[in-house]
Order: sequence, then structure tokens, then C-alpha cells
Amino acid sequence: MPAGRGVTVALDGFGAERGFDVLAEGARLAAAEGVLLRVFGSPEELGLDGVEGIEVIPTTEWIANEEDPLPAIRSRAEASIVRAVRDVANGAADAVVSAGSTGATMAAATFGLRRLQGVKRPALAAQLPVPGKPVLFLDVGANSEVRAQHLVQFAFLGSAFSQAVLGVERPRVGLLSVGEEPGKGTEEVIAAHALLKNAPGLQFIGNVEGSDLPSGGVDVVVTDGFTGNVSLKLMEGTARAVTTAIRGAARSNPVAGLGGLLMRPALGGLRRELHPDTTGGAILLGLRAVAVVGHGSAGAEGIANAVRLAARCAEVGAVGRTETLLRESGANRGSLASERGA
Amino acid sequence: MPAGRGVTVALDGFGAERGFDVLAEGARLAAAEGVLLRVFGSPEELGLDGVEGIEVIPTTEWIANEEDPLPAIRSRAEASIVRAVRDVANGAADAVVSAGSTGATMAAATFGLRRLQGVKRPALAAQLPVPGKPVLFLDVGANSEVRAQHLVQFAFLGSAFSQAVLGVERPRVGLLSVGEEPGKGTEEVIAAHALLKNAPGLQFIGNVEGSDLPSGGVDVVVTDGFTGNVSLKLMEGTARAVTTAIRGAARSNPVAGLGGLLMRPALGGLRRELHPDTTGGAILLGLRAVAVVGHGSAGAEGIANAVRLAARCAEVGAVGRTETLLRESGANRGSLASERGA
Repeated sequence: MPAGRGVTVALDGFGAERGFDVLAEGARLAAAEGVLLRVFGSPEELGLDGVEGIEVIPTTEWIANEEDPLPAIRSRAEASIVRAVRDVANGAADAVVSAGSTGATMAAATFGLRRLQGVKRPALAAQLPVPGKPVLFLDVGANSEVRAQHLVQFAFLGSAFSQAVLGVERPRVGLLSVGEEPGKGTEEVIAAHALLKNAPGLQFIGNVEGSDLPSGGVDVVVTDGFTGNVSLKLMEGTARAVTTAIRGAARSNPVAGLGGLLMRPALGGLRRELHPDTTGGAILLGLRAVAVVGHGSAGAEGIANAVRLAARCAEVGAVGRTETLLRESGANRGSLASERGA
Repeated sequence: MPAGRGVTVALDGFGAERGFDVLAEGARLAAAEGVLLRVFGSPEELGLDGVEGIEVIPTTEWIANEEDPLPAIRSRAEASIVRAVRDVANGAADAVVSAGSTGATMAAATFGLRRLQGVKRPALAAQLPVPGKPVLFLDVGANSEVRAQHLVQFAFLGSAFSQAVLGVERPRVGLLSVGEEPGKGTEEVIAAHALLKNAPGLQFIGNVEGSDLPSGGVDVVVTDGFTGNVSLKLMEGTARAVTTAIRGAARSNPVAGLGGLLMRPALGGLRRELHPDTTGGAILLGLRAVAVVGHGSAGAEGIANAVRLAARCAEVGAVGRTETLLRESGANRGSLASERGA
């Protein structure tokens, strides 16, 4: 993915589990490709003085993972993530990135940036780390409980992002359920299916099942934030468990060990595809700017990918294109049946 | 898992996707270990005449996967799955097994067998195909929407099964959610957490996340049938996608191919552990007899494992032991707070 040259990204200078050096190295990698960075953190810890394209705005407060996000962002106007979001709201930066608390980033962005017209609930999207073409999956945690009309909006948000940022011309959108038939699933899923079937401007392919997520036959999959969060973590955990077990098998005896050595180069691509760092992190959609939450455990390449992703969103005008799609489909004016009853 | 010698299993003689020969071979394998089988199917197609321990009861009607289960089982008293369930209700067999429609099997069993005292909703449980010690996971599809008190009952059903059939002395029970904190999740999950924390006779370890399912730190994981169904299929799909990608890597060049050959013996155990056939299928819990639904695509070993699992349930008195646990904990008399409000 080409980084956004000349685009400015506000980066939270705290929260990366692997420390300031890793965060700083990620910032350096992205800046070297032409992304401009405004980092809200400690100049001493980051050691980014004089790096071209990077400005460190001295910041001492930050919000930890364990803190309750809402009270934290409301009471601490000088916390790094709150300042980074304000930077975007003020127009000094085009997108915001954090490798810290997902909850605090969502809360800060939702309160600090305006929602797109007609969007009731921003959604957190992730690119699933599966072999082959990644699937955009949302909501992965912003809304534990959703109504049918929210699922419909997630479909529009995901489709627009897939088109604008991931370059999928006509994204195939699926609704996650427990069977292909339109009548399968919870009440809200069944209602969402009926609305999506008639939604203009979407290529809705119907219900998809859990087994379809890693299969690549769909570009965007929509679900509630509870199921989405469980699924994303389950998928990452399963991929990790299987690859760990394979490594274990390779160590079980010398012959298998030699086999593992011989396979290693061929497996490198797969390892990269399955690694959470590769996709850059989760993207909060539905606001007037994009917020990207990197994996807390991201390495420098993961941080850089999160910044690249945010920069690319700004560069291609992801927000404006999403707004256009929502407007053209009528989804922003309450003209979808779902919206009337909302 | 030792098969139940001298126990009688009623087997649906239709519905196995890989045909009558595979179904018959599976029956033969289980019968050879001493399980008695009553198979409701076509004597000609099955070709099981004269096999010791197997009686084929000529049956011509059956319910297909595409059919709507409820009307089908209600209107077709002579369909194979309905007859197999009736066999158990009549006392001629101790448990029922089908490799056909999951919906039809659940519907036939729920209507044909009585529920355990105090159980409001039977649940479908599956042993997750993960490397290492399998996790019992329920509900994987019987109830798309559940209340908190149903989740509590699933915890008791799963814990009793894990103890009685899987031999786990003090099963650790987790509640699937989107974070460890008791306040994370949907309203019903949060309420269930509070009830489970105080439930007597359970070793409740709190919320578990999607990433914990393949990690082996928990014996029983409880969730609603929507999330459970999506998760189970996702996990199977991800394991399949990763192993397929590894096979692809092994074929990408001769060196990697040689590596793959050398690793093959060491990987055999993992392949077996990940294969859906290994666990025998999903188990319907909460009724006065156990019903096992094998994978539709099961091979002969998968069919045999489903029969062995059902026989073992009957042999160890899984239903009686579940009833005892429910009684001792008070979960069957409405003495759990959850039950009063139900």
C-alpha cells in the first residue's frame, strides 16, 4: 500500500506495549516515505529530534489500557490521544493513529470528531489476517448491541472504505449469520438482510457464515460488535495456535526439523499475511476523519503500517467518498426504510 | 475414547453426504468395538445384513438438509431421524446419532425426548478442534438469542458433560465476551457473569475472549447460539485455510516440497486434531438422552466417532450425572436468582 505523501498524521506518542523505541522507529519508517507526522509524546523518550517530517509536540499525560475510557477522555483534555484527535479536529492533521487503548481512541475520536451525516454509530473495521485477499470486517468492537439499521450503515461504511482505500471496484458485501437463508439468525440480522437486499449502491451477496470469512469469496462482512470482536480475536488466536503447533511439530525430531528449515522461505509470505502487524490495525469509520488503532503489541513495521493506512485514507479522500456513497444511496437522508423507523 | 460396550445407539441411516457406504462402514467400526446399533435406513443401500451387533430397521423416508426442520419432523412420523429418536424415547436405544440435518435432529430430539428438570433450552455443544486439549463450547446453534439465565444453564450442562463424559475433574467454565472485565459485553452477558460468579457447584473463571478459545486455559466456554455457531465455523475455516496455505507453500518449489515431505509424519497428529471427524460431532445437551449430530461430510471414522461419543455418554450416565449436578446446585428448582425472574 503506497503511503500518503504530504498527508499529515497525528500520532499518539504513548501506549505502544513494546516501548517508545519501537513507536519512534515506526514513525521514522513512515516519515521516510513522505508522510508528515505530529507525535504527541515525550521528546526525550521518543528521541525523534531533527527527523525530517516529524514534529514532536511535548505531551506528558496519557490514558492507559486499564482505565475506563469515557471518564478518562472527558476529564483529561491534555492526554495524548485527546490532543491528537483535537489536532485533527483543528485541521492541523488529516487522520489520527494510536497504538494505545482501543476504547480511549474510539471514545476520543467519537467525541472529538463529528460523525458523517446520517451515521448513527461509528464502527470499528479490521482487515482479517487470512491467506490471500484480506476481508474487511466490521464492527469489531465499537457497538456490542446493534439494531438492523446500524448493520445496514456498517455495510455502506465498509463498502465505501473497500472501494476508496482498498481499491476493490465493486465490493461484495456479506452479512454474517448462521446460515445462507435470509431467515437465519437473530431478529435484527433477519431484518438487516431484508433491508440490505433492497439497498441501492451496494453489491449485497446475502448471508455469509463463519466458514466463509477465511475463504475470500467476499470483500466486506458486516456484523455486530460483540460477534465481530469475538470472531476477530478467535481468528487471530486460531491462526497463531496452528502455526505454533506446526513449529512444535518441526521441533519434534531432527528429520521434521530439517523439513521445517527447507519450508521456511516458502512459508515466509504466509507468516507475513497472518501477522497482525501487516494490516496496520483497526479503522474507526463513520467520522469526518479516520482514526486507526494499531495493535498494542505492534512492532515498528506494525506502527508504520498503521500510519501508512491512516495516511492513505486521507490521501484518497476516504471520508468524502464515503459521504458521497451514503448520499447517492440515500442512506444519509433517512430515505432507507431502516432509517424511517429509527 | 473407549466406546460404550453393551450400550445401544439408534443411528439415522440417511443424510451422510459421503454416501451409504461411508455410513455403513462407520457403523461397522463402532459395532466391532461392542456398541449395539439400531440403524433406521435402507437395508439394500447399507448392506449391513448379518453384521454382529447391528440391526437395520427398514426405513424409506428421511428429512433433507434443505427442508424446514420443524414442519418436516411434525408431518413425517416415519422419517428416519424421527423414528431413531422415538426408539430412544421408547427405551429401545440409549442415545441417538445422525449425520444428517442438524436442524431436523435438534427438532426431532427436542420434541421427541423430554427435557431435564429445570432446563429451559437444550443447547448444542461442540468440542473445538484445536491443538492440545479440546474445549467444550456451547451453544453452537440451538438458540440464536438467549437470556442470561439460559447462559447460566448452558454453564451447568457443559460442566456436567465435561466431568461425566470428558473426564475433567473440576472443569473451568468461561463466559465468552469482548473483554475480561465483568462489565464487558452485551446486557445479557453482563447479567450472566453476575449470576455465574455466585453459582454453586461451578468453577467459573470469568469472561474469556475469542483468543482464549484455542489457548486451552479453559475447559467449557459458554455463549449464545449465534456467536457460538459463527465462532465454530470460523475456527474450522481458519484452521483449514492455514493448513491449505501451508500445503500450497510446500508445493511452491521443490526444496519446500522436500521440506513438506520430511515434516509430514510430525504433522500427522496435528492434522488429526484439527480434523472435524476426530471429535465425533455436536452434542445436544439438556434432554433425557443425548443426541449427537455428526459432521455431514464425515468419513467412516467420523461416523464411528459420533456413535462412540453417544455410546460413551450413555455408558457413563451423562444424563443422570447432569441431573444430579443441576439438583445439587439448585439450578433445577428455580433457586438460582436467574430462575426466579424467568
